[in-house]
Amino acid sequence: MSVLVCITGRNNDKLMMKLNEALPEVKIELWPNCENKADVEFVLAWNAPDELWRQLPNLKVVQSYGAGVDGIPLDKLPNDVQVTRIVDKQLSVDMAEYVLSHVLAHKLRHGEYSANQANRNWKPRRAKSSNVVGILGLGELGCKTAQLLSSHGFSVRGWSRTLKRLANIDCYAGEAQFEQFLSGLDYLVCLLPLTQATTGILNTKLFSSVSSDCVLINVARGQHLVESDLIAALDNNEIGAAVLDVFQTEPLPEHHPFWTHPKITVTPHVAAVTNLDTVVAQIAANARACLAKQSLQNLVNQQTGY
Amino acid sequence: MSVLVCITGRNNDKLMMKLNEALPEVKIELWPNCENKADVEFVLAWNAPDELWRQLPNLKVVQSYGAGVDGIPLDKLPNDVQVTRIVDKQLSVDMAEYVLSHVLAHKLRHGEYSANQANRNWKPRRAKSSNVVGILGLGELGCKTAQLLSSHGFSVRGWSRTLKRLANIDCYAGEAQFEQFLSGLDYLVCLLPLTQATTGILNTKLFSSVSSDCVLINVARGQHLVESDLIAALDNNEIGAAVLDVFQTEPLPEHHPFWTHPKITVTPHVAAVTNLDTVVAQIAANARACLAKQSLQNLVNQQTGY
Repeated sequence: MSVLVCITGRNNDKLMMKLNEALPEVKIELWPNCENKADVEFVLAWNAPDELWRQLPNLKVVQSYGAGVDGIPLDKLPNDVQVTRIVDKQLSVDMAEYVLSHVLAHKLRHGEYSANQANRNWKPRRAKSSNVVGILGLGELGCKTAQLLSSHGFSVRGWSRTLKRLANIDCYAGEAQFEQFLSGLDYLVCLLPLTQATTGILNTKLFSSVSSDCVLINVARGQHLVESDLIAALDNNEIGAAVLDVFQTEPLPEHHPFWTHPKITVTPHVAAVTNLDTVVAQIAANARACLAKQSLQNLVNQQTGY
Repeated sequence: MSVLVCITGRNNDKLMMKLNEALPEVKIELWPNCENKADVEFVLAWNAPDELWRQLPNLKVVQSYGAGVDGIPLDKLPNDVQVTRIVDKQLSVDMAEYVLSHVLAHKLRHGEYSANQANRNWKPRRAKSSNVVGILGLGELGCKTAQLLSSHGFSVRGWSRTLKRLANIDCYAGEAQFEQFLSGLDYLVCLLPLTQATTGILNTKLFSSVSSDCVLINVARGQHLVESDLIAALDNNEIGAAVLDVFQTEPLPEHHPFWTHPKITVTPHVAAVTNLDTVVAQIAANARACLAKQSLQNLVNQQTGY
């Protein structure tokens, strides 16, 4: 067996070095180098070219190089291939902290005071009293974020495909309860997995249901958001502001209107950055499990896509 | 007995209305109106003119209109006058949240990404790993702030005049341990009472002891800070940045250099804003206690000044 790494759009030198250190007994190649395609049983992948998959007759495991599997074309893989993903506990801690920091910055008017400072304008105001936060998605990241905001005195609702039960969080589920979940939200945080059902979920219809001061925080994927709908909703005062860490195209193109919109805060996909050592340890453990025909960590359900 | 209100530099209409509602049985006058100075036993004061105090032969209680008593000239009051202050539990919650929000904003590089956004610059970086926070002053506000930051994983030190013992906080006390407390701090939060001993404590000597990336957060009083020393320390890269909510002169004068300094964040004295209803209830209770010759709430030790 050999391991093939096929991650496009980034420099993989450090990753390859650490993988070779962690798996000295295994042959590891970086695509497009691949001496013998029939040897490849384990692929570490993100946004691999579609033609790769039919060239690997003995593929057994696709390890996603991410917490999601939207960089893996599940419908193009043979049925008997197992798909796994990265689960990094620190990610949920970092994600929750990113969301809290931006919610507090809005509540305490950091942006408003910064603009006033530029105009030498002394204008004290009370902190915003709006405190209803809705979290779309109650996976590991969503739960941790919901709990942190709740511990800071926010009134927190969560929405997921199937109903969850979480202490101090008002849980809603499915399309039937979606409107009720959205109604009157002051902050809306998107932490959904990207699936066919969730692509474009942040759209005009959703924006019309939340509070007109609502702050949208998208920290999931750029494809959750219909970008033109957001600009219209902000310009029509249907929502108040947006904090975006993810985009349809990354890096965000130079002439994209998000850069200069006065109600949009852009951060460069930094809310939760995977730790390479954690990742390499999980990949190594799964590659060894594959070799030993043992069960894998963090398997993905290929029907639901997460 | 009558109550005299002498608070300069603000509009007291709303306060007077609420005091009259809360104490319908007591005569309450707003300085300089005062029909009979010999009737005045209770003064609610902040920055009252010095000549007031010797005109009140039967003064028994001075109620400070604040959490501190630096608006009250303790050395000019007769020895038998009791001094009390306002204690508003919500203040410490608000203060801790303000400090946390600015510490997180620095850790997660809000300002840096905002500047990058203005230049359409996509430049992801890891969050800052610096995490040693020092709190000057371990009264109610300091303790609450220390505990909140500690619960967020920061390594927190506290310094006070006399040694305190607090869970998860490394406590230091007095001049002897001051240097040790400061050494290597990444964030320094001033929450001291303003006394003779603490005036000007944020000065060149202190700035030379902390980390060169240290973020100073002053949420106590403007007089704690030697303003020219701060500008020199920032310009010489002895400290990294400053978040200032209080100033020697408030509102901050239009031509003050703090407004435009690239490493200074100015907020208009909003970190913890007293709730008028809470304040009026405490004043009313103390005025009634004075009338009934009962013991007062939140007495100030006139030796230490808090």
